[in-house]
This record gives sequence, structure tokens and C-alpha cells, in this order.
Amino acid sequence: MKNERLLGFVRSFSSFLAVDRSEPAILVEGARLLASLVEQDDWLQEEFARPDPTFYQQYLLYADPLERFSMVSFVWGPGQKTPVHDHMTWGLIGMLRGQELDTRFHLQADGSLKPGETRILAPGQVAYVSPATHDVHQVANYYSDQTSISIHVYGGNIGRISRHVFDPSTGTPKTFISGYGNDVVPNLWR
Amino acid sequence: MKNERLLGFVRSFSSFLAVDRSEPAILVEGARLLASLVEQDDWLQEEFARPDPTFYQQYLLYADPLERFSMVSFVWGPGQKTPVHDHMTWGLIGMLRGQELDTRFHLQADGSLKPGETRILAPGQVAYVSPATHDVHQVANYYSDQTSISIHVYGGNIGRISRHVFDPSTGTPKTFISGYGNDVVPNLWR
Ligand SMILES: [Fe+3]
Ligand SMILES: [Fe+3]
Ligand SMILES: [Mg+2]
Repeated sequence: MKNERLLGFVRSFSSFLAVDRSEPAILVEGARLLASLVEQDDWLQEEFARPDPTFYQQYLLYADPLERFSMVSFVWGPGQKTPVHDHMTWGLIGMLRGQELDTRFHLQADGSLKPGETRILAPGQVAYVSPATHDVHQVANYYSDQTSISIHVYGGNIGRISRHVFDPSTGTPKTFISGYGNDVVPNLWR
Repeated sequence: MKNERLLGFVRSFSSFLAVDRSEPAILVEGARLLASLVEQDDWLQEEFARPDPTFYQQYLLYADPLERFSMVSFVWGPGQKTPVHDHMTWGLIGMLRGQELDTRFHLQADGSLKPGETRILAPGQVAYVSPATHDVHQVANYYSDQTSISIHVYGGNIGRISRHVFDPSTGTPKTFISGYGNDVVPNLWR
């Protein structure tokens, strides 16, 4: 059963969310479960770990039918990076393979967005974003010569949420809905 | 969005089951939702509709992470049929394409199982099984020259349930766990 670990996460997190929870409680428990999921890199099916030569890939792994949470694998080809963007919901990032560079952006008095703290995520590490604290960042593959993969969990169906990318020099937002690249998701019982 | 209809079923049925329900209520509401799912045959992804030359196929379409229900597509090649079997949980059968012949089996005083009522299911029709009423049947493709497909919903994770096939002449049960043939399931948001 390759997907046993992924099933374990989905099952535990679904049970946890079945009770009404506050965001801080969700982030603490979610980070604990996600850290345990990414502490070993032996479970992600190859078709959800495949980089694309041109764009970073976001593969849906699981979404709650009532959209209480979703999980994706983010697959970075060498040197790939996101635009500066927000999420409009909490998000957890668990590093599975390779490393990524996470840069937070902060709104300035003139409306522009300035890069602030950066963090390099190594395998097994977990980070988060949230509209309640900081929601705007840019993420890049730390490597210019290898694939990196992180597992993200969001407080909604991330592929369907209307959110924003920003031109940091002006701060101008552009609405976007990311969608998903994959027609199929893992069978958790295989 | 090809999977919109499937998503609609999963979402509605998940919401319905979130409240504790009696089996009769589940069967009534489940049959209503399933009838509406199979009333049009324009949504099942080709890879979950593919017959195998030798064996009938059972593709997982969705399973609740807490195993409150599961959904499969049953794909019958020409002339294929199941052994006489039980389910150990309620099950709903919605006919999507082609026709199937459903034969109920009844326990006799000498321990053997005798075929009783038969029913031909046409597209759009819904039938059910249940340990509370009759749980032992045999299902066959009605056609010897074309594929038939039905969509099944069960009150548990059917691929993981320990249940039985029977030799009808003696009634001797053999334990079996069906498993699933597919490594991936539909992305409900595509
Ligand atoms: Fe992000
Ligand atoms: Fe059956
Ligand atoms: Mg495939």
C-alpha cells in the first residue's frame, strides 16, 4: 500500500476537521500531521511528482468534497518559481524532496510590495501562510539543476479559490484561479 | 467540467451522511441521488469505463476517507458475470450503460442457495442489496456482444470489506476481499 501514509493524513485531518476548530488549532494539528507525512519520501506516486519543462506543476492529491481542505503536490523543475501571490485561506507547506526558497512580501506605504524574510525549506520542514498573519509570498525552487517537491494543504479547495498575483513594483493585484493539471488523483487505498 | 455530476453526488451524499442516518433513510436518499447521476451517460471518464477481455472490472471512483461510503464503476465485458456473492453492507446499483441481469439467491433447508427473482436493469434504473433484506446475488452482463456499466454505492469501503463468494450447490462460503484495480481515481474538480 504505497498510499497508506497519504491516506493516514487525509483520514486524521478529516476526523480532526469534523469538529469545528479555530485556525490556530488547525495550523498546529495540521503542521504536526504534515510533518509526519513528509518525514519520509517514499510514498508519492510518480505521476504526481513529474516536473514540466516550462511551468511548475500543482497536482491535486485530495480535496474534501465539502471543500474544508485540499492537498496538492507542488513540483518545481530546475529554477522554476511562482509569481508573487496570495491564498485567501490558510496554507501549510511540507517539504518532501529538494529545497525551496520562500520569500514573504510586505505592503509599503506607496502601495508596492517589498521582499522581506526569506526561508529555505529542507525536506521534513513545514511552513505556513495565512491571511491572519502574512499571506503574500513568492516561492522558488532553491535548485537550478534538480526537481524540488513540496506538499501543500489549504483551508479550502485551492484550485477553485479566486485569489491574486501581484506586480510587486506597483502592488497591482490580478485575480487568478489556479485550477488543477490532473484529471485523476491518487486512489488512497492502493 | 466532466466530473461535475459525480462531484454533485459525492457532495450531496457526504452532506447527507454527515448526520447520523438509519439505513432505510440512506437507501431512499441514496437511490434518489444515484438515479439522478445515472440518468445521463455523459460523465464517466474513459479510463474508468474500460472493459477487460477476461474479468469484469471494479474501478474505485470515490471513497469517503472515514469509509462511510464508497463508489465504484462496474464494467462488464460481453458475457461477463460475478460469482454468487454477498456484500456485508447495503449497496445501491445504478445502471449507466447497457443492461445487467441481477439474480437473487435464497438459502435452502439443505444449505444450498437457489436462484430466485431476476431483474433486468436498464439505463437510469436503480436497485439495492442489504444484509437487512437480501444480500446474496449474482450479476451478469445482459449482453454477449457489448459492454455494460453500472455505478455502485456501498455503505463502507467495498474494496476492503471481508465478504463471501458462494458455491450455490453446497452454499459453502469462501472469504474474499475484492480490492481495486485502479491506482488513481477521478479528480472531481475536472
Ligand atoms: Fe503560495
Ligand atoms: Fe453485488
Ligand atoms: Mg493515468
